[in-house]
Amino acid sequence: MKALILYLPILDWGRTYSRDALTNDLVAAIIVTIMLIPQSLAYALLAGLPPEMGLYASILPLVAYAVFGTSRALAVGPVAVVSLMTAAAVGKLALPGTADYAAAAIVLAFLSGLFLLAMGLFRLGFMANFLSHPVIAGFITASGIIIATSQLKGILGIKADGENLFQLIQSLLLHLSDVNIPTLIIGVGATAFLFWVRKGLKPLLLKRGLTPRMADIMAKAGPVAAVAVTTFFSWALGLSKYGVAIVGTVPQGLPPLTIPSFNADIWTSLIGSAVLISIIGFVESVSVAQTLAAKKRQRIIPDQELIGLGASNIAAAVTGGYPVTGGFARSVVNYDAGAETPAAGAFTAIGIALATIALTPLLYFLPKATLAATIIVAVLSLVDFSILRTTWNYSRADFAAVAATILLTLGFGVEIGISAGVGLSIFLFLYRTSRPHIAEVGRVPGTEHFRNIKRHKVETHPEILTIRVDENLYFANARFLEDYLYDRVVGDKRLKHVVLMCSAVNEIDTSALESLEAINHRLSDMNIKLHLSEVKGPVMDKLQRTHFMSDLTGRVFLSQYAAIRELHADSGGTVSQTEPT
Amino acid sequence: MKALILYLPILDWGRTYSRDALTNDLVAAIIVTIMLIPQSLAYALLAGLPPEMGLYASILPLVAYAVFGTSRALAVGPVAVVSLMTAAAVGKLALPGTADYAAAAIVLAFLSGLFLLAMGLFRLGFMANFLSHPVIAGFITASGIIIATSQLKGILGIKADGENLFQLIQSLLLHLSDVNIPTLIIGVGATAFLFWVRKGLKPLLLKRGLTPRMADIMAKAGPVAAVAVTTFFSWALGLSKYGVAIVGTVPQGLPPLTIPSFNADIWTSLIGSAVLISIIGFVESVSVAQTLAAKKRQRIIPDQELIGLGASNIAAAVTGGYPVTGGFARSVVNYDAGAETPAAGAFTAIGIALATIALTPLLYFLPKATLAATIIVAVLSLVDFSILRTTWNYSRADFAAVAATILLTLGFGVEIGISAGVGLSIFLFLYRTSRPHIAEVGRVPGTEHFRNIKRHKVETHPEILTIRVDENLYFANARFLEDYLYDRVVGDKRLKHVVLMCSAVNEIDTSALESLEAINHRLSDMNIKLHLSEVKGPVMDKLQRTHFMSDLTGRVFLSQYAAIRELHADSGGTVSQTEPT
Repeated sequence: MKALILYLPILDWGRTYSRDALTNDLVAAIIVTIMLIPQSLAYALLAGLPPEMGLYASILPLVAYAVFGTSRALAVGPVAVVSLMTAAAVGKLALPGTADYAAAAIVLAFLSGLFLLAMGLFRLGFMANFLSHPVIAGFITASGIIIATSQLKGILGIKADGENLFQLIQSLLLHLSDVNIPTLIIGVGATAFLFWVRKGLKPLLLKRGLTPRMADIMAKAGPVAAVAVTTFFSWALGLSKYGVAIVGTVPQGLPPLTIPSFNADIWTSLIGSAVLISIIGFVESVSVAQTLAAKKRQRIIPDQELIGLGASNIAAAVTGGYPVTGGFARSVVNYDAGAETPAAGAFTAIGIALATIALTPLLYFLPKATLAATIIVAVLSLVDFSILRTTWNYSRADFAAVAATILLTLGFGVEIGISAGVGLSIFLFLYRTSRPHIAEVGRVPGTEHFRNIKRHKVETHPEILTIRVDENLYFANARFLEDYLYDRVVGDKRLKHVVLMCSAVNEIDTSALESLEAINHRLSDMNIKLHLSEVKGPVMDKLQRTHFMSDLTGRVFLSQYAAIRELHADSGGTVSQTEPT
Repeated sequence: MKALILYLPILDWGRTYSRDALTNDLVAAIIVTIMLIPQSLAYALLAGLPPEMGLYASILPLVAYAVFGTSRALAVGPVAVVSLMTAAAVGKLALPGTADYAAAAIVLAFLSGLFLLAMGLFRLGFMANFLSHPVIAGFITASGIIIATSQLKGILGIKADGENLFQLIQSLLLHLSDVNIPTLIIGVGATAFLFWVRKGLKPLLLKRGLTPRMADIMAKAGPVAAVAVTTFFSWALGLSKYGVAIVGTVPQGLPPLTIPSFNADIWTSLIGSAVLISIIGFVESVSVAQTLAAKKRQRIIPDQELIGLGASNIAAAVTGGYPVTGGFARSVVNYDAGAETPAAGAFTAIGIALATIALTPLLYFLPKATLAATIIVAVLSLVDFSILRTTWNYSRADFAAVAATILLTLGFGVEIGISAGVGLSIFLFLYRTSRPHIAEVGRVPGTEHFRNIKRHKVETHPEILTIRVDENLYFANARFLEDYLYDRVVGDKRLKHVVLMCSAVNEIDTSALESLEAINHRLSDMNIKLHLSEVKGPVMDKLQRTHFMSDLTGRVFLSQYAAIRELHADSGGTVSQTEPT
């Protein structure tokens, strides 16, 4: 039963579901539904898909997450960045608007679902950790810019295509003379209205005496108002006759059952994109879920979140949807509106289902420019270059990774951008550990303490060299230590002993062990003995199982002090005082 | 001048070149020449190239290395593993024996040379460190098996192709009925003879009173004897009439000047292979060079070695050769024979050049089976499975990387094998650092010392939680720490303070900083204060430049003892004794 609850969190919260929770969840669901309808349509458009696919992606996936997910406030559905990534992935296979394109998006959701499920079942949630925060921040910012730019075409009523910023701008400039004035009026009007709703409406409502929570929720209904008003004008004035692009026929009724195509070529071309989309979606979703859970001292289980999101995406694939994940803005609204359990998501699904049954005919006259305005206003809040300043001040390596992610995403599209960012941040970390801090140490006079000879006034012995390495020894720095030692030792004819002080070494891998063997061997060729000091217990246990301990020309000392005392007594050499440099 | 010497080491050793050194270098050159002639022919055959290309690759490249290289004993030329990798790379573009195939091998040498030069000029030699020793050992062993198996066709006088072990075995079995008996006799005879030379000849010569060094050198001449004897029989008995494959016409004279093809498609297809070949060749070469240099307390400069090997490969590309690197067996012979400076390599080049002028007509009747025997005997000494046992006993992560490298190399060929090995060993390292050791600590009674509550009998306070993380905090473990903390904190209603003991943290990157900010924020939502203790100077310097220090709900304590003393006094809570679990 306990295991079952782990995999089906609904069995946990479902048993204690109360009337109060029901009321709160229902209120939250109504508000999220109102927010989700225009968003679903808009993001489907952004992904190059027919608008109904956005609605379909907001029904069964939400129910699936309610059953399998662990977050009580996460609102799942189509989101901006994943929609953009879907367009980039599927665009390689087919032209937007074709049946092949929609079919590929369904396969993408299916593959993404399978991958997330597999990661969850094998408890591989930790893999998301290899996306560093700054890289994600840079990626989201760059994606936001690309999305906003791509939607300018909707505001201007022209055509424009491109996977990266430069293609988009070029394409926009090329078609600039085709601007449709009525579309421009609707687009700019809707954009201005939505910005005002965001910034100006809430203070106004507060002044009128609404509670802050109500004012906040009213402000979230802005997009629905924009949709209603522009649709009305579009119908009343017959704007489509003047060249205003409208949504047109949206099929009425519940989502169809779809079976993803099992074409090996399509699978092969999409699998890489599915992995990227899954990981980006998972990372975004988990951070929102964690933030919201922490506020109520609740917790989420990242590996189970993978299963929840996997189930959602498979649900999307079998009901004509496309890749989904937990949305940031939407989840915050859900939380603020009082959602207490994942049931709120299921109720939202019912709301969207009702909308697909009853409201779709009303969407016929909805201008696409309104949806473009919705997207632009939504994604511009994602654009935040402060990460560049933060990392510049704090860590240049992180800055390099962020800058590369932003530039490559803008210049070469989302897939290359995020891959390069992840690769570069891992490379920079490995690079730093591959060149560890190595200090030559001497004894602080009058103590048993050994410190860096460059920073402290210490005693050394010309026949004894003590080296302290401040990093685990592993393959990437094994040769660095070798080189450092040989460089230091070659030419110093007085040396008889080298002591490796291992106080900061928590691990020695096989490569480092072989390097130590080589060092031992080569020092022996030079008639220098190699000793170790302050080796930690677990490291010593492993070393005891090897030949190294018997081959070692010198000894292993419990403390550095013991090493110097005994070696110095044996050789009877002189003591030098060194000053910090 | 100093910078010039750095880039042209010949200016260093050349100025002090003595008559003694000349004599020693000449003797070494003669011995290496004798060893190199059959090897060059054989390895060219292994690479699927005409035999003269092996000779060409042993002339100008050696001179180039003598000018730019820093090792005094390294003998450069075609080697087994790189020849196999050349065959794998070039085989994707053209059929062995065609002009396109040879042209692609030349391009490969050129690309490899450019890549090595670029790495050297940008001082990127450290990149070779990301090849772990066990992965290389596994790769060489697997390559040796593939090479030996591929050469069985030469011994049996049949045809067989394949990039991996299973294709090779399948192909051998398929053609087994075509075995040519005279070829088999020569092949098995030569193999047996060469094994005897390796194992039995030296003791015999020692018994006859030769010095160990002379006996060793004589034994190295075995392959030349095998070539001479089998060529004689092949000529005298007219063996080619009985189906024995012979080398045939080898062009007489110095290498031609060749200009690598500048075809973009060929470059694109070969660049990945060129990178792999360069790195593998460099790693092998540098380890031999370092081992030999250490014996004489000399040193090599890895970044300059890249330039030396780069120049060699470009020299190979412009004189009809193919990728070269420093050979292990050959360099040891060179060293043992007394080579004192890189001039020995230049003299070897002259020896090979003379051979291409004078001896090539004699090679007409040389049976290919003899060359196959030479290769088999040479590469079987590379096969060494002991790394599997070593790593199994010492480190399971390393074992996994080696086993994967061997299996994937045997099963899918050299390029997939080595790439997977490198990828896996980096992944396993990252995985380990992504799940650092985290301990909850308490005070050892009567001291100011804090230890793991699971291992020691310590005092704790129910309202204060102290966590010690034994790893640098960076993106891959930032979320792990977050998860660990939330899991620990959620549900513990008594907690008022969390202290993060940072004694083992040498670095906090931007992601980890953001995690700390998130932890601070979320703990604050739970009315828990976050404190830090024992933060190192450089880490503190970086933190001071951020908002984190002003946002921190708690304080930064110099020592863990101070933290507990002051926090406990403030809250006036109780003290608990915990027993180790």
